[in-house]
Amino acid sequence: MTQTAQFDGVSVVKKANVYFDGKCVSHSIVLADGTKKSVGVILPSTLTFNTGVPEIMEGVAGSCRVRLKGETEWKNYGAGESFQVPGNSSFDIEVADEAYHYVCHFA
Amino acid sequence: MTQTAQFDGVSVVKKANVYFDGKCVSHSIVLADGTKKSVGVILPSTLTFNTGVPEIMEGVAGSCRVRLKGETEWKNYGAGESFQVPGNSSFDIEVADEAYHYVCHFA
Repeated sequence: MTQTAQFDGVSVVKKANVYFDGKCVSHSIVLADGTKKSVGVILPSTLTFNTGVPEIMEGVAGSCRVRLKGETEWKNYGAGESFQVPGNSSFDIEVADEAYHYVCHFA
Repeated sequence: MTQTAQFDGVSVVKKANVYFDGKCVSHSIVLADGTKKSVGVILPSTLTFNTGVPEIMEGVAGSCRVRLKGETEWKNYGAGESFQVPGNSSFDIEVADEAYHYVCHFA
């Protein structure tokens, strides 16, 4: 997947979203067409996120291991790779040595 | 100082800046006129930041105590308040219970 390094022509909310005592920090952005996304980073940790709407997590830098709700297998994802999470669900994510940078797309 | 909650029509770099093992996380933005800023958050900690160019730190949420290089006094800053740091200098910043959200303006 080819990625650009930045989003252009967007609005960015000044106040960050801080989850899990700061193990995950993101900033919300709104594209010109009204689409909402977030750009964020997960520090080394193992966390469980709940979803409302479906999400696509797109890796920007670093890597992670992910286990979707109801699955037993962990899968690895790095920069340029994405994984999809259903709505009203959850996923476990493990980030090891290096921070995992991502863009979260809300479907 | 009146603040808007977001920047509009900007570019945002997808990869975050992670400092001090994640105690400070920011995302770089570029305004339409080319001005660079960052939107970030500092988690509870006491940190020392070095400056290259002069910076104005504008509080968005939470609060902090700051001691500029060469000063003995700590000063308190909250949301809507700013402090200025000279270039090629440093400042100590202490964030207590609650995350300090900021916009950093490079002068």
